[in-house]
Amino acid sequence: MAHWTLRQQRSLLRASRAHSAIVHAASGLRSVSATPDARLAKWDDDDVAHFRRVLRDRPDAVLTDAHDTAPFTIDWVQKSKARGSHHVVLKPKTTHEVAQILQHCHARALPVVPQGGNTGLVGGSVPVFDEIVLSLSAMNAVVNFDAISGVLVCEAGCVLEQLDSFVAKHGYMMPLDLGAKGSCQIGGNVSTNAGGLRLLRYGSLHGTVLGVEAVLADGTIVDCLSTMRKDNTGYDLKQLFIGSEGTLGVVTKVSILTPPRSSSVNVAFLGCEDFGAVQKILIDAKKHLGEVLSAVEFMDRQSLSLVLEQQAWHSDPLETACPFYVLLETAGSNSKHDMEKLEAFLGHAMGIGTVVDGTVAQDATQARKLFAIREDIGIALVSRGYVYKYDVSLPMSQFYQIAEKTRERVTPLGADVICYGHLGDSNVHLNVSTLAHDEKVFQQLEPWVFEFTSKYRGSISAEHGIGTHKPPYLHLSKSETAIQLMQQLKRMMDPKGILNPYKVLPPDGK
Amino acid sequence: MAHWTLRQQRSLLRASRAHSAIVHAASGLRSVSATPDARLAKWDDDDVAHFRRVLRDRPDAVLTDAHDTAPFTIDWVQKSKARGSHHVVLKPKTTHEVAQILQHCHARALPVVPQGGNTGLVGGSVPVFDEIVLSLSAMNAVVNFDAISGVLVCEAGCVLEQLDSFVAKHGYMMPLDLGAKGSCQIGGNVSTNAGGLRLLRYGSLHGTVLGVEAVLADGTIVDCLSTMRKDNTGYDLKQLFIGSEGTLGVVTKVSILTPPRSSSVNVAFLGCEDFGAVQKILIDAKKHLGEVLSAVEFMDRQSLSLVLEQQAWHSDPLETACPFYVLLETAGSNSKHDMEKLEAFLGHAMGIGTVVDGTVAQDATQARKLFAIREDIGIALVSRGYVYKYDVSLPMSQFYQIAEKTRERVTPLGADVICYGHLGDSNVHLNVSTLAHDEKVFQQLEPWVFEFTSKYRGSISAEHGIGTHKPPYLHLSKSETAIQLMQQLKRMMDPKGILNPYKVLPPDGK
Repeated sequence: MAHWTLRQQRSLLRASRAHSAIVHAASGLRSVSATPDARLAKWDDDDVAHFRRVLRDRPDAVLTDAHDTAPFTIDWVQKSKARGSHHVVLKPKTTHEVAQILQHCHARALPVVPQGGNTGLVGGSVPVFDEIVLSLSAMNAVVNFDAISGVLVCEAGCVLEQLDSFVAKHGYMMPLDLGAKGSCQIGGNVSTNAGGLRLLRYGSLHGTVLGVEAVLADGTIVDCLSTMRKDNTGYDLKQLFIGSEGTLGVVTKVSILTPPRSSSVNVAFLGCEDFGAVQKILIDAKKHLGEVLSAVEFMDRQSLSLVLEQQAWHSDPLETACPFYVLLETAGSNSKHDMEKLEAFLGHAMGIGTVVDGTVAQDATQARKLFAIREDIGIALVSRGYVYKYDVSLPMSQFYQIAEKTRERVTPLGADVICYGHLGDSNVHLNVSTLAHDEKVFQQLEPWVFEFTSKYRGSISAEHGIGTHKPPYLHLSKSETAIQLMQQLKRMMDPKGILNPYKVLPPDGK
Repeated sequence: MAHWTLRQQRSLLRASRAHSAIVHAASGLRSVSATPDARLAKWDDDDVAHFRRVLRDRPDAVLTDAHDTAPFTIDWVQKSKARGSHHVVLKPKTTHEVAQILQHCHARALPVVPQGGNTGLVGGSVPVFDEIVLSLSAMNAVVNFDAISGVLVCEAGCVLEQLDSFVAKHGYMMPLDLGAKGSCQIGGNVSTNAGGLRLLRYGSLHGTVLGVEAVLADGTIVDCLSTMRKDNTGYDLKQLFIGSEGTLGVVTKVSILTPPRSSSVNVAFLGCEDFGAVQKILIDAKKHLGEVLSAVEFMDRQSLSLVLEQQAWHSDPLETACPFYVLLETAGSNSKHDMEKLEAFLGHAMGIGTVVDGTVAQDATQARKLFAIREDIGIALVSRGYVYKYDVSLPMSQFYQIAEKTRERVTPLGADVICYGHLGDSNVHLNVSTLAHDEKVFQQLEPWVFEFTSKYRGSISAEHGIGTHKPPYLHLSKSETAIQLMQQLKRMMDPKGILNPYKVLPPDGK
């Protein structure tokens, strides 16, 4: 999975300290200039006094103590601290307060990092220097839920898992699910266009989000909080805020369509002899399981072996060791029908030989155990040593080729390649594992991985975003004219560049 | 349904001539200034000569004869002709040609109307004065189809129905379906964010379109033609072109995710005693039919009576006359399972009394007959006399209230209110029928209908768009700051205002 819960991140942090293992997140901060943008000002005591007034002197609404600000300024994945030496974190409770804060910051040219649960993986939610952290966590109320239409309206700081529990009471579910659900916030999900496990079935947030209320860089409140599924009245402005990582505006409220909750869930773990069979399973599963198919995850034998080696509590679910595995999930409204479909599909797949061994979970506990193997690969990688992580989209014919080619490049250097991902979404998680950091391995990987992805018109960031890690590589997924148009948009909507600086776009003219 | 096929439109046109019936499309062109925008130039013979060179002197690539240009300049719904006296229609075959045309038009400040199948309902696809028509109809090739992922890449001029037939050969279907499918083009669908019958199941084009290639006002080609389902690399620029009705750029190619085709389709026609029961059916159908539910359409008794009165070939499908009807469709991969689900749901609904009478189609012919009743209401309205048409989204609690309130306002004036729509999408088609145009009725309707919609945060245009008909009412669905941001976007992307002028947005400062 793409994200970890805060608890997992913390244990991961402990593990990494114990093992001296550091996740090498691609180019890291090296793309960011060594000094702050000269156009931007630094906040001072007068600003803090102003913020305290705006936030009505509420305790905990303005944090300046280093101990208090640390959870908001440390990147959990990189374990890197912002380079600045003193920080301020603001926690408004209303959209009006957000607007007042931004109005002031805009007038003073003070840089601002909008932040949700701080669970991102590309350095997008933490300050690079001394930017002001604008945490939405205190705006966490459900505004409205319509049990007939399934439309939920809530504030940006609502935690995803809590929203899922809330709508579950009415028979609905959130259209997205990710490992970080216990910590991530819906405003952050929307701002980063979070993907995750349910995208295959329910599509991206560009489709499921019906409305957004956002505050622009200058404090203007833009209310596009439609609750209507169909609304063709002018330009669909909410799309500007979905996936722009807080660089075009701060999302303060979200209206989202929630699908009915499935009463029946089945999980199957299948072994295949070659990647052609993996592809065939995807096609056949889409055809036979159609409307009940809810996840098609992939891992290679190297992924499973690593989990078994690092995590003694897991066992191989199959008797036959296979080079490739597919984890299928169905979710539907009738367990008898779903199981019949799954059995018919499996019979077909075993008949034509695409599946050589497989198991179907008999209950929810077994299902969770099978899914846990897939979910634990990321942690197993970190506990083994050093890991170079890539999150790319590729056409099916290159989905596993990138792992094979990478293996040719790094195996002679003693590195292992672990490949898994969201097969149903063409989203590859390519990981190169070494016992310690190795510059020679890195040289074999970058920019080669991004160039390979670009060559096949893939995406150099499938679901994690660009953040501070990938602006120098953006041109490998987007054309020059597209990047110019993005920069035009940024200048128009944030002329002083105060919103989440150093993120997403390469500097103008580059 | 929202659209008609060209054939239907033509017969509708004949019918309307025979009956002197004219569809009164809200405010019509009255919102447009009486004279052309003074910033824009008029094309001359030198321009035409230039276009002929760009289009390599292909016969039929440059049309100037009035007979030839008429199908491109007449609005099929309003039957109104553009006010200009001489027209030119350009039919480029490549994106590069589109770019050359726009580069020239931009340099000369010549206004351009991008056009697909010209099946829109709000006057958005025809010239108001002498704007150049840029028809994409000659760009109609399928570029690529990936039978594993179901991703189709094609040129803008491909006709929707032909694309649906093409992907059907591989077991897939287009994620959208509308009555105009035999004429409408995918580029126009994307530019207008067409809704239609499959939106309930597969979501809007903002989610299913994966990529767009577009040409900006100045001729710059923006290639965002991703074929990846997940692509978080910078701002999602394609969204700017989805639903902006050709005012921000000309869509030249589209990449779209097509879902697997359902092998089993069932249709049920149900009668209810009150609107509370209609709402309950929607909730229960979502819960019980979940993943196989593919359409939930609504009509009132007045709609059915009108069809029966105007179209002798239809008959009442039920023995009991009911005030409200729901038309349900399921689409799935297993006919036995789907029928079991439908029967269980119907048993439940009749048990608790939400359904008082109902019928289930026994074969495809019966299913088509039931759907035809719903589809033919629009034509029945036109053949009866004069009709005031509104296409709005409203929360469920106001979905039918708008019809009741409208009835109170116009029944004393002798007008009938006919209400139907896409219940599952909260999309109401409110129609007021009179034997002839009646200004008193109109005064009772506008701006009241839009104000009522606005009061409940509905959308004054659910799926038809704004075009030339609704710019003066945009403020009733969108906030002032949102409209200002739209105008800023328009100025940034089309500083001379050459792309589809007089459409979508009110003039700056209004």
